[in-house]
Amino acid sequence: MAIRVGVVGSDGRVGQAICHAVDKADGLELVARIDKDDALQGLVDSGAEVIVDFTHPDVVMGTLEFAVAHGIHAVVGTTGFDETRLEQVRAWLADAPRVSVLIAPNFAIGAVLSMLFAQQAARFYDSVEVIELHHPHKADAPSGTADRTARLVAQARREAGLPAESPDATTKALEGARGADVDGVRVHSVRLAGLVAHQEVLLGTEGETLTIRHDSIDRGSFAPGVLLGVRRAQSRPGLTVGLENLLDL
Amino acid sequence: MAIRVGVVGSDGRVGQAICHAVDKADGLELVARIDKDDALQGLVDSGAEVIVDFTHPDVVMGTLEFAVAHGIHAVVGTTGFDETRLEQVRAWLADAPRVSVLIAPNFAIGAVLSMLFAQQAARFYDSVEVIELHHPHKADAPSGTADRTARLVAQARREAGLPAESPDATTKALEGARGADVDGVRVHSVRLAGLVAHQEVLLGTEGETLTIRHDSIDRGSFAPGVLLGVRRAQSRPGLTVGLENLLDL
Amino acid sequence: MAIRVGVVGSDGRVGQAICHAVDKADGLELVARIDKDDALQGLVDSGAEVIVDFTHPDVVMGTLEFAVAHGIHAVVGTTGFDETRLEQVRAWLADAPRVSVLIAPNFAIGAVLSMLFAQQAARFYDSVEVIELHHPHKADAPSGTADRTARLVAQARREAGLPAESPDATTKALEGARGADVDGVRVHSVRLAGLVAHQEVLLGTEGETLTIRHDSIDRGSFAPGVLLGVRRAQSRPGLTVGLENLLDL
Amino acid sequence: MAIRVGVVGSDGRVGQAICHAVDKADGLELVARIDKDDALQGLVDSGAEVIVDFTHPDVVMGTLEFAVAHGIHAVVGTTGFDETRLEQVRAWLADAPRVSVLIAPNFAIGAVLSMLFAQQAARFYDSVEVIELHHPHKADAPSGTADRTARLVAQARREAGLPAESPDATTKALEGARGADVDGVRVHSVRLAGLVAHQEVLLGTEGETLTIRHDSIDRGSFAPGVLLGVRRAQSRPGLTVGLENLLDL
Repeated sequence: MAIRVGVVGSDGRVGQAICHAVDKADGLELVARIDKDDALQGLVDSGAEVIVDFTHPDVVMGTLEFAVAHGIHAVVGTTGFDETRLEQVRAWLADAPRVSVLIAPNFAIGAVLSMLFAQQAARFYDSVEVIELHHPHKADAPSGTADRTARLVAQARREAGLPAESPDATTKALEGARGADVDGVRVHSVRLAGLVAHQEVLLGTEGETLTIRHDSIDRGSFAPGVLLGVRRAQSRPGLTVGLENLLDL
Repeated sequence: MAIRVGVVGSDGRVGQAICHAVDKADGLELVARIDKDDALQGLVDSGAEVIVDFTHPDVVMGTLEFAVAHGIHAVVGTTGFDETRLEQVRAWLADAPRVSVLIAPNFAIGAVLSMLFAQQAARFYDSVEVIELHHPHKADAPSGTADRTARLVAQARREAGLPAESPDATTKALEGARGADVDGVRVHSVRLAGLVAHQEVLLGTEGETLTIRHDSIDRGSFAPGVLLGVRRAQSRPGLTVGLENLLDL
Repeated sequence: MAIRVGVVGSDGRVGQAICHAVDKADGLELVARIDKDDALQGLVDSGAEVIVDFTHPDVVMGTLEFAVAHGIHAVVGTTGFDETRLEQVRAWLADAPRVSVLIAPNFAIGAVLSMLFAQQAARFYDSVEVIELHHPHKADAPSGTADRTARLVAQARREAGLPAESPDATTKALEGARGADVDGVRVHSVRLAGLVAHQEVLLGTEGETLTIRHDSIDRGSFAPGVLLGVRRAQSRPGLTVGLENLLDL
Repeated sequence: MAIRVGVVGSDGRVGQAICHAVDKADGLELVARIDKDDALQGLVDSGAEVIVDFTHPDVVMGTLEFAVAHGIHAVVGTTGFDETRLEQVRAWLADAPRVSVLIAPNFAIGAVLSMLFAQQAARFYDSVEVIELHHPHKADAPSGTADRTARLVAQARREAGLPAESPDATTKALEGARGADVDGVRVHSVRLAGLVAHQEVLLGTEGETLTIRHDSIDRGSFAPGVLLGVRRAQSRPGLTVGLENLLDL
């Protein structure tokens, strides 16, 4: 029997893409589209088993409280979850032991795999740097994914007993040439017409380098990750943070 | 106390590089250099605890039998180990339960990580192809590493229930354009002056691609893998095939 | 004053994209959209000075004859122009010395620049190979652009006195591994979900390589080349074959 | 008859590589090796027709004055030639109209071609950025070649009427993330173990990008450029600055 899915924030650009992806996915049925003028009760009335929420930090907590209270699983791509908010979600889930909530900052499987592989490889290499390349309309530099990748790699280096900083004999640098310093890892942000969203993690040691590159040319590249989250919702009660926990690697 | 290391095949190009690497490595001591005119007894006399053998299929079995019989661990990069030979090694080791033998077709950590990551990622992607690029003096195409990578990826696809072949609507192809077919995976071999040894695994699904690239510009890039094998020898009795088993991923 | 432009084949996917590009371009005015049910006379009635034709080999010659006869310049991306057809166009133009016709197999400026640069660089390098990478729905391998690039590079090698084939010591190859042989140049065709249209020309000599890569992620990447052709139409009477002749390099 | 070549600074690492390259080059004869304890008169005595000088700013002017005065051509890779020095060289050459001096900051043909192609392509693209990647022992960032490439590209943009800066909507950046600003062009410097000397120029416009990448894995990659300079010395009297002027593109 198909899993019954409700999409919250269904009229936005991302929401529409998710509705479309759910609609054509095997084994899933789109039963509710909820946008800002619709009552959440529509989720219950339609018999939704899982909701997908890519909305706004201002409204997501209300939606999550409602979903958990009604025994509906949630797959959440909305940003802004700090430790306080995660604690609140855990508290709600304590009273609903069969309900699952997946919150992930990035649903692009390739981006998540890139981060995982970079982390795993980091301890075998003396050097690591990150280059992220995006379209020129992006407001922040580095990207959230690059920032997170750098922090994960930095942590892997610490755990392996490697120095925080990669070897670097630079004594004379133009300002900015060596990139941003994120937890000891250099991150370079390229902004170029004709690009969409790309990232390279470069790892090097004597005589060899390993490069993990992710290219996303479609803002819909989060869809496979969302569908995976929906499909695994029932089998993973409680709070899960990060898509990587669903990849069984 | 330093681990006492003997290098067999010490006068060849690879052997010399290994001697050099052992010599400057922390915690290792080079105590014996054995080449074709030297008696293996030199290993015992020098108190070698671990040998490194990058020699020839014709002589490696004799050396291994000697080492195991004398309680010396072995790290082996020599090729030609089929199942019959591996069985023989296991039989010798059955009588020497504290001795370890590591046999690996590839000691370049980056190449080994590339294969592992390609395998792990394969099940999330519709398509996968391999491009390997080498100097023009190479005799075989594809490279052994590319062949092995393709086979591992093909197996990962099978295990995930993916079709053997990536989607491909080609109806009109010039002979060879689509590469070699290794277990359903297309492999392309580039030979170019100015290159050394490089490989890219390209994985793709709707809207995104993941590329795992390994560049080796120094034939000494096997050294870190060999040193890792030497350091772990004592703690891993029995036969281990493949460096990936030492990476703790 | 704006250049008055008519688009022939205006209702197809490419035609619509061209209409859109002309519409928003500075200094151009879209005055006629002609599709298969419309009379070519509409071009004259609307006062079109230049037409853009991305249609079909079956109809393009009639359109061109009409345009030249009425003193209208033409920018043509339709395929199928062999020497016989080009001769016919030259004959028509002989009677209309102020009219220009630009026929080009590729209007993506990046693809055209890639070919030019590859040609210019070829004589300084021992080795050259081409890798083209496309979405898996493509029917032919190698792509037309890769085939043409290989032929131009092969010609540049001949003119520089280089051997037709790059150095290659391969003695043991799996069928297809070394790619297709186009005029002595090896061409590799990758087909991968998540890609659109990409090409790399790799040139190598002792110790260094030069790579010219073109990525097109939008089938509308021909638009800038078309607009360039339209703007230069008046100043370039006669037949021009190939966009490269307009780039003033 | 072979061209008679003298190498000044013959005992240094670069000088030795040049001696080696001259020695094995067809049509060239190495007739003099001059290092700091040798008198320049040795060049005259050996009948050198062309000298190659990769030495130091402190001594190169004396050597050049001597060479020009004795009718010997010079190919110079020594750095530090400002306009004052170039004027001085021109003054010496005014009295020796058949003598040629070639001074170039970069003799790697691939690096020179990269710069040329980047310049030629720049005016067709909205955006351009430079990434240079080097071994971690390098002292300056960005590299001299990247700095020069950025300046040439910036000049090409100005000449084409393009704005100095590529489009960039960044409003929130970590310090250094967007690289160094060289004449309006963003330049990123990566330092990584396992690399030698690499550079990418990325050019982009709506829907497409063009990447020109140069990889040098051998510090001897200047040799082909030096040999080209030596061979063309006789046919190019006067002062020539930059190898690009010898490439006949």
